[in-house]
Amino acid sequence: MRFTSQQRLDDGVLEREFTLGEIPGILWTPASTSAAAPAPLILLGHPGGLHQMYPRLLARARHAVAEGFAAATIELPGSGERPRCATAEQARADLRRALAAGEPVDDEIVDRLVVPLVDKAVPEWQATLDAVLSLPGIGGPVGYSGGVIAIGIRLAAVEPRIAAALLFAGSFVPRGMFAEARQVTIPLLVLLQWDDEGNDRQLALDLFDAFGSTQKTLHANMGGHTGVPPFEADDANRFFARHLK
Amino acid sequence: MRFTSQQRLDDGVLEREFTLGEIPGILWTPASTSAAAPAPLILLGHPGGLHQMYPRLLARARHAVAEGFAAATIELPGSGERPRCATAEQARADLRRALAAGEPVDDEIVDRLVVPLVDKAVPEWQATLDAVLSLPGIGGPVGYSGGVIAIGIRLAAVEPRIAAALLFAGSFVPRGMFAEARQVTIPLLVLLQWDDEGNDRQLALDLFDAFGSTQKTLHANMGGHTGVPPFEADDANRFFARHLK
Repeated sequence: MRFTSQQRLDDGVLEREFTLGEIPGILWTPASTSAAAPAPLILLGHPGGLHQMYPRLLARARHAVAEGFAAATIELPGSGERPRCATAEQARADLRRALAAGEPVDDEIVDRLVVPLVDKAVPEWQATLDAVLSLPGIGGPVGYSGGVIAIGIRLAAVEPRIAAALLFAGSFVPRGMFAEARQVTIPLLVLLQWDDEGNDRQLALDLFDAFGSTQKTLHANMGGHTGVPPFEADDANRFFARHLK
Repeated sequence: MRFTSQQRLDDGVLEREFTLGEIPGILWTPASTSAAAPAPLILLGHPGGLHQMYPRLLARARHAVAEGFAAATIELPGSGERPRCATAEQARADLRRALAAGEPVDDEIVDRLVVPLVDKAVPEWQATLDAVLSLPGIGGPVGYSGGVIAIGIRLAAVEPRIAAALLFAGSFVPRGMFAEARQVTIPLLVLLQWDDEGNDRQLALDLFDAFGSTQKTLHANMGGHTGVPPFEADDANRFFARHLK
């Protein structure tokens, strides 16, 4: 892990860009941290494209740091400045074509798009955990928040350092991952936008039902994909405070 | 409205029992209120039986008063010390018989049980509003919280002083009331216990979908009817604070 920039933002947040091998990432921490009381870490998921997502990621990071958390994110495979993957690009084109034609999205397209992404991304987020948790002033337990829900499901199922996850039911989930959802036992907060154009509401409800966690909460709100109400950011902080502090 | 008892609880809550005509009720207020900054009022719904429900109502009232609200409740028609209604008792017996036999509950039974209850209870809650809002130190806007959801739906649809409602999807809703749900436009927080034995999950989701409100949030949690997690009490206060303060 190599830090490539560092700046102190005006509200007491230290923002550091880094690279982990060839993967770019960003770490936000309280400007003053203490080894005696390390900040619990929240991994900020996103749909890919760190530069484009930066304003929203920064807002989420500020909100988390204000509550005493550290926050970190990395670029997804095939997004932003990372090399494209031909098969994923083909699957994405097929998905766009189906959506534009108003056709139902074939499970096979979702599998081609999401399964390789999850297979590649999850070990990268785990390597990020290794690196970030070795820094002074940052500790476990760890939360995972938002982004591509299939990555969150896999991480929640396989990574024991992740103690709680907020999952946004707003992207495609391969049918085969329902079995992984049943393996998830950590506390979950699942956000669902009730009228999300690109998201199958019934599939999201079925997925919520499938999670093996005994502590799981669904928050459904009106509006489309990007219409999550601002108060859910506070609810997210309280969810993580209950389980990480 | 006639106060029949008054006691100051140890956490600065003033509890007053009252009767409104023949209807018993309880009012909880901050021990010191001011006419200059009247406390917004939350009506505490319940399934009937003030005496039996008192410990839970008191806990909810304490929680609300601690956040600066006043809270009030009244006995439901046919419950507690109020005279029984023969047709409602017959419907209740038919319902119990269907549930005990594991049969689906006929819409006709739900109609016989709930529609007369709503028709009678709603004007009583409205009369309670008239009385309580005329007291010094208590003001609008008003919230309605919990209890028989069909009463909450009707109140939210017809009573303009109610500015926000928390509805517990945990009791039977006559099919005919879906049309009233579509008339509701105030902000809603709907609680659903995902594994509530006595509640039809799909019907609860359909009802959430039917509400006409543009600001509506569903909180679904694991467990049965009485298993609502304690953090939902905080979420309820924050919901009412957003809309009543």
